[in-house]
Amino acid sequence: MIVVLTGGTGGAKLIEGLAAEIDPAELTIICNTGDDATFHGLYVSPDIDTITYTLAGLCDADKGWGIRGDTFTALEQLRRLGNDAWFNLGDKDLATHITRTKLLNDGLTLSEVTDRIRRQLGVQSRILPMSDQRIETRVQTPQGELSFQEFFVKERWAGEVTSVRIVGAEQAQPAPGVLEAIRSAEAIVICPSNPITSIGPILAVPGIRAGLEQTSASVVGISPLVGSAAISGPAHKLMIASGFEASVVGVARCYKEFLDALLIAAQDHFAALVVEALKVAPICTDIRMASLADKRRLAGEVLALVKK
Amino acid sequence: MIVVLTGGTGGAKLIEGLAAEIDPAELTIICNTGDDATFHGLYVSPDIDTITYTLAGLCDADKGWGIRGDTFTALEQLRRLGNDAWFNLGDKDLATHITRTKLLNDGLTLSEVTDRIRRQLGVQSRILPMSDQRIETRVQTPQGELSFQEFFVKERWAGEVTSVRIVGAEQAQPAPGVLEAIRSAEAIVICPSNPITSIGPILAVPGIRAGLEQTSASVVGISPLVGSAAISGPAHKLMIASGFEASVVGVARCYKEFLDALLIAAQDHFAALVVEALKVAPICTDIRMASLADKRRLAGEVLALVKK
Repeated sequence: MIVVLTGGTGGAKLIEGLAAEIDPAELTIICNTGDDATFHGLYVSPDIDTITYTLAGLCDADKGWGIRGDTFTALEQLRRLGNDAWFNLGDKDLATHITRTKLLNDGLTLSEVTDRIRRQLGVQSRILPMSDQRIETRVQTPQGELSFQEFFVKERWAGEVTSVRIVGAEQAQPAPGVLEAIRSAEAIVICPSNPITSIGPILAVPGIRAGLEQTSASVVGISPLVGSAAISGPAHKLMIASGFEASVVGVARCYKEFLDALLIAAQDHFAALVVEALKVAPICTDIRMASLADKRRLAGEVLALVKK
Repeated sequence: MIVVLTGGTGGAKLIEGLAAEIDPAELTIICNTGDDATFHGLYVSPDIDTITYTLAGLCDADKGWGIRGDTFTALEQLRRLGNDAWFNLGDKDLATHITRTKLLNDGLTLSEVTDRIRRQLGVQSRILPMSDQRIETRVQTPQGELSFQEFFVKERWAGEVTSVRIVGAEQAQPAPGVLEAIRSAEAIVICPSNPITSIGPILAVPGIRAGLEQTSASVVGISPLVGSAAISGPAHKLMIASGFEASVVGVARCYKEFLDALLIAAQDHFAALVVEALKVAPICTDIRMASLADKRRLAGEVLALVKK
């Protein structure tokens, strides 16, 4: 079993590659839920949805979120009814949030709901939320604190960030199966997701970081940064705000207690020695994933590294 | 002010006519909520929605419910996600139910939510739910008890009905403004709605029937039946199950304590004498409303009767 820690967009690309290279049933995916938010009374879990839609073959690869070909009829009407609808929710996508909210209100856990939805969509990989308790990533700015979605979607990650808080993590527990999956994994992959607000919240759940430090399985990461900038999104900005340098060295520092190897862009070869000094093996390769072929090649490299 | 008591489809036709004949701001509409139901965790109020959409110019007149040109993308996906989705909910329509559910969960009353939605859609008439408390019309059949929507939509009102219960009415109060509207009305119109499951639940709310009996305003009804059959829907079947004959005489009996006049189809002239014996003035006319011209003509006849 390969265990994958992931956020949304960047992680989904690698996971699409992994699921094409091995039996998808051999993948257990631990998803960030720190970006979860409630819109119009509906519980939205963006990273779980992106991963689920990707594995179901439904993801809108161009946008990196939502369902391909989805329409936005309900959202337009929500606006007409006076709702502040800055978060894009497609009509098909809404069905997911309606179903999830209904089942959560019926008393099911987020794990149970996530499992039911992925099975209904024919996804063979296990998808686990990092926790069944609510954990919220909050972004501090000079103008005040924002939820992650307010920062990322509403403000389009513009403006200064002073720090990031992961609220509720200390009181939370890993979702059922998370620690067991890490303990019994053949290998663990840290996706090219934002280390602060995608992987960071997962590591903040008590027991997960320790599990990664204690596992005998290989732990391999893929850098979400090339040079000093994220391939997509605000990872560099959030790393600096959290006291890390915006580079593969910063990424290696985020994970150094448990990371065996880090795949980095060839152009970052100058940083390889610093990564190595952190006792993380740097592996220079092409980490960009534009096409399915790219995703499969990179996934294949990861698997070649970790498979015994 | 003209006060109108109504259910959905049949009532909406007359109300469309009334709103075209007089200033819509002069109409106060008291709506049945006994058909309200929760689907996928969303609170649906079918009669309020039909009236609101009709007055907003959005109603799908061919179907008699929902929003014209609406799509069913979310509903199809809800089915794919394993939900039993027998109640049709369009994408635009869903926005209403999402908004209502959110606001109810925020602590607003159904009256407040209904008023907010109708204003957002530019409806000038007041729309009042009969009550802010939950009242549920239950249909008894030899196979067991059904909610009204299960009977009407899921079972397409097939099969035998033994009786109808209006659950929760005795403990409920009229919504704010309902009794005041009846008390101060210039005239009161009982729409050509089902007397048992559309008007019946309104009359079952404590104080409303007494208010109608005590008002000095004219109270005029329009028969939903021609001969022994409803113009649409199961009114005849439900009237028989409730101990009334399926005819304009049965309709007159449902309302005789407060009804001054009843508009009936010309072909029901034979029953006029029996209606008259109940101290309800029978008025033979063309009560079918196929076109907007029909709706306006019938509304005009009603207004000519009641306006002083």
